[in-house]
Amino acid sequence: MTNKKLQETALVCFSGGQDSTTCLYWALSRFESVQAVSFVYGQKHALEVEVARRIAERAQVPFEVLDLSLLSQLTDNALTNPAMKMDEEQPAGSYPNTFVPGRNMIFLTFAAVLAFQRGIRHLVAGVSQADFSGYPDCRDTFIRSLNVSLNLAMDTSFEIHTPLMRLDKEGVWALSDELGVFDVVRYETLTCYNGIPGEGCGHCPACNLRRHGLERYLSRKKRTE
Amino acid sequence: MTNKKLQETALVCFSGGQDSTTCLYWALSRFESVQAVSFVYGQKHALEVEVARRIAERAQVPFEVLDLSLLSQLTDNALTNPAMKMDEEQPAGSYPNTFVPGRNMIFLTFAAVLAFQRGIRHLVAGVSQADFSGYPDCRDTFIRSLNVSLNLAMDTSFEIHTPLMRLDKEGVWALSDELGVFDVVRYETLTCYNGIPGEGCGHCPACNLRRHGLERYLSRKKRTE
Repeated sequence: MTNKKLQETALVCFSGGQDSTTCLYWALSRFESVQAVSFVYGQKHALEVEVARRIAERAQVPFEVLDLSLLSQLTDNALTNPAMKMDEEQPAGSYPNTFVPGRNMIFLTFAAVLAFQRGIRHLVAGVSQADFSGYPDCRDTFIRSLNVSLNLAMDTSFEIHTPLMRLDKEGVWALSDELGVFDVVRYETLTCYNGIPGEGCGHCPACNLRRHGLERYLSRKKRTE
Repeated sequence: MTNKKLQETALVCFSGGQDSTTCLYWALSRFESVQAVSFVYGQKHALEVEVARRIAERAQVPFEVLDLSLLSQLTDNALTNPAMKMDEEQPAGSYPNTFVPGRNMIFLTFAAVLAFQRGIRHLVAGVSQADFSGYPDCRDTFIRSLNVSLNLAMDTSFEIHTPLMRLDKEGVWALSDELGVFDVVRYETLTCYNGIPGEGCGHCPACNLRRHGLERYLSRKKRTE
């Protein structure tokens, strides 16, 4: 990365997983100053926040946690449609029952408010259209619309950066390697549904997705060496 | 109101104040079914929620409260820019120091998530461009952009209704009279910064704005009778 860095600050939505860790280092390569914000809520592994904090400390990035446990008010309780059956357990290959439609919109809006109050106009989010898993709020069209709404809401000029938007998992591994943080992402991040950092449990859907991407990237790398 | 009602449900963002109470009755005149959601946070008068609950009960509208006290995380604490001096007390004629830029965006996004989970696609908000008090997130342009962002975020087709958008306070009094709820709005709602329902304390900025509108409306009404 020989690009001259932008003399501005970026705020990264940061969970300590593969995607947002890659985004954190992408931001460090592009911006003079980087901050990170993490969201805790409902059934999210508490360990995840500690992993995020550790990675941020290692990268010397100021790190804050916002408590969005109110998201649970919108899921499996009386507030939701009583006709809507909630899962007792997280369904295999699917999402926890605290999943809230529009969750990325809520996260990015809170991140934007925080950024606004700190005089920061660059936001970075690890959403990917390629791996969007059926969530409409990972798509580029949505992010661009949200960018306009945030700008109008606060009469300002945010730029939301989504460096992974067109990348599949193999591409995300490639990017972390380009950024010189392949090992950090491989061994320090937490993606696994069962809360095991690095290579993870090896059999949950998140581990499968991550491993398949890694295998594809490593075999591509081998062929080109 | 002889219009045939829409055979759908509307969710009203409802605080128990003059504007949102007028919106609640507007919604009742237009939709077969109406629900209300109120947001509690930070320094908001607890009484306000009880006033809202009472008005909703009287109107036989299901009423829920969402706790957004996390908004205080975004204001007068370590998360905000330490260089940004926060007011110790609410400045006269201004807003409490828990005011958060983009707050309407956060409220409407949470309301939309709740609506989505209940299969509701109509949202009603009492924002007004005429009285927008310098908040960009009261403007029609913002609301229309937000509507698109919400639709893209959840792949759905919300309609945000803002019946007060072009009305000043006099116009809001006129609308409540047309809807047959002039006295309910006048004597049951709470707008006063000092937490006094109905006519209020009579001297805070909210009371002044409300009273001037009322006086203008009553004198117009007198002239045309």
